[in-house]
Amino acid sequence: MKLYGDSRSGNCYKVQLTLALLQREHEFVAVDILQGGTKTAEFLALNPNGKIPTLVLDDGRSLWESNAIINYLSAGSPLLPADSFQMAKVQQWQFFEQYSHEPYIAVARFINKYLGLPDDRRAEYEAKQQGGYKALAVMEQQLAQTPFLVGDSLTTADIALFGYTPVAHEGGFDLSGFPHINAWMQRVRTQPGFIAMESLAGC
Amino acid sequence: MKLYGDSRSGNCYKVQLTLALLQREHEFVAVDILQGGTKTAEFLALNPNGKIPTLVLDDGRSLWESNAIINYLSAGSPLLPADSFQMAKVQQWQFFEQYSHEPYIAVARFINKYLGLPDDRRAEYEAKQQGGYKALAVMEQQLAQTPFLVGDSLTTADIALFGYTPVAHEGGFDLSGFPHINAWMQRVRTQPGFIAMESLAGC
Repeated sequence: MKLYGDSRSGNCYKVQLTLALLQREHEFVAVDILQGGTKTAEFLALNPNGKIPTLVLDDGRSLWESNAIINYLSAGSPLLPADSFQMAKVQQWQFFEQYSHEPYIAVARFINKYLGLPDDRRAEYEAKQQGGYKALAVMEQQLAQTPFLVGDSLTTADIALFGYTPVAHEGGFDLSGFPHINAWMQRVRTQPGFIAMESLAGC
Repeated sequence: MKLYGDSRSGNCYKVQLTLALLQREHEFVAVDILQGGTKTAEFLALNPNGKIPTLVLDDGRSLWESNAIINYLSAGSPLLPADSFQMAKVQQWQFFEQYSHEPYIAVARFINKYLGLPDDRRAEYEAKQQGGYKALAVMEQQLAQTPFLVGDSLTTADIALFGYTPVAHEGGFDLSGFPHINAWMQRVRTQPGFIAMESLAGC
């Protein structure tokens, strides 16, 4: 299978981390999002929504949306609970990530780190801070009760939230007031097969 | 089980529609989002993210995020495919809905219909139009190929996108240029057990 991605995207890192934890081989195809790599006719044929990561199976079928991809890859593994309510809780945290966490923390990081916090995006950047801190507080509350987001072991819910939480400081977020998030990040980092976002050459 | 919701929310309607299609009984608890009903201590104990819909099972466990709820309710029913790739495609469309569709179409509708398009939100409202039309174009392209978003039968992917697409005009979107979306909406409306958002007294 081929993974189309960009090294700077936490959404792409989620997939790389899942593949590493599962010890699954794949071919990486670099797509430069800042140079319009997701807007070409060739790429739009794989994902009409023009976003990475996009996974293409050996039979040519494509799958997009990072959390759908990591759940697909993890089917039947310990990264997904067998219990239907626990599985729903995994999805709950993933939808929370895409609606209430990523649009604040990842977008603030993008404006700051990759666009260089230009004057015409500063108001938007500052407006992202409140929502980002709210999302972190919701995570902190859960992680004060359970070692991982859905109970006692790592699931794709944790991988989803691990995409951008460790790099939240690049979006201006101070994690020092979130001890349970910090302890959780350490738990994730000690999983067998773990790879850090910074260590990836290609995704 | 109890469903906490607000009659004006398409995210809540998704759950009501799923329950109707599955012929499942539930108790509805009205929460007025415009009057701070999701910000009370009582509600935040059910969902620390302060959003409806929130489902509370008879044993007291709660589940939030509309798409996680409808997938949980649909487990083992024809609304969810058994094949793991098809199941991933359902989730793909649901994450697309929450990231690329709802933040444009539902938010434009909210600003226009419920806030009365105030001057200080007009620029935001107008900025939502491009993203909303892009999402509709992605749906149109898929629905030109398959009668439902994931193949030949209705799944929770369709229910997710049916939350706000039929009321997109309330956010300023003209659906007349999307014949396949219109045909798909008719297909959904003729499903046994279908209920329209407008017909709901309480959600």
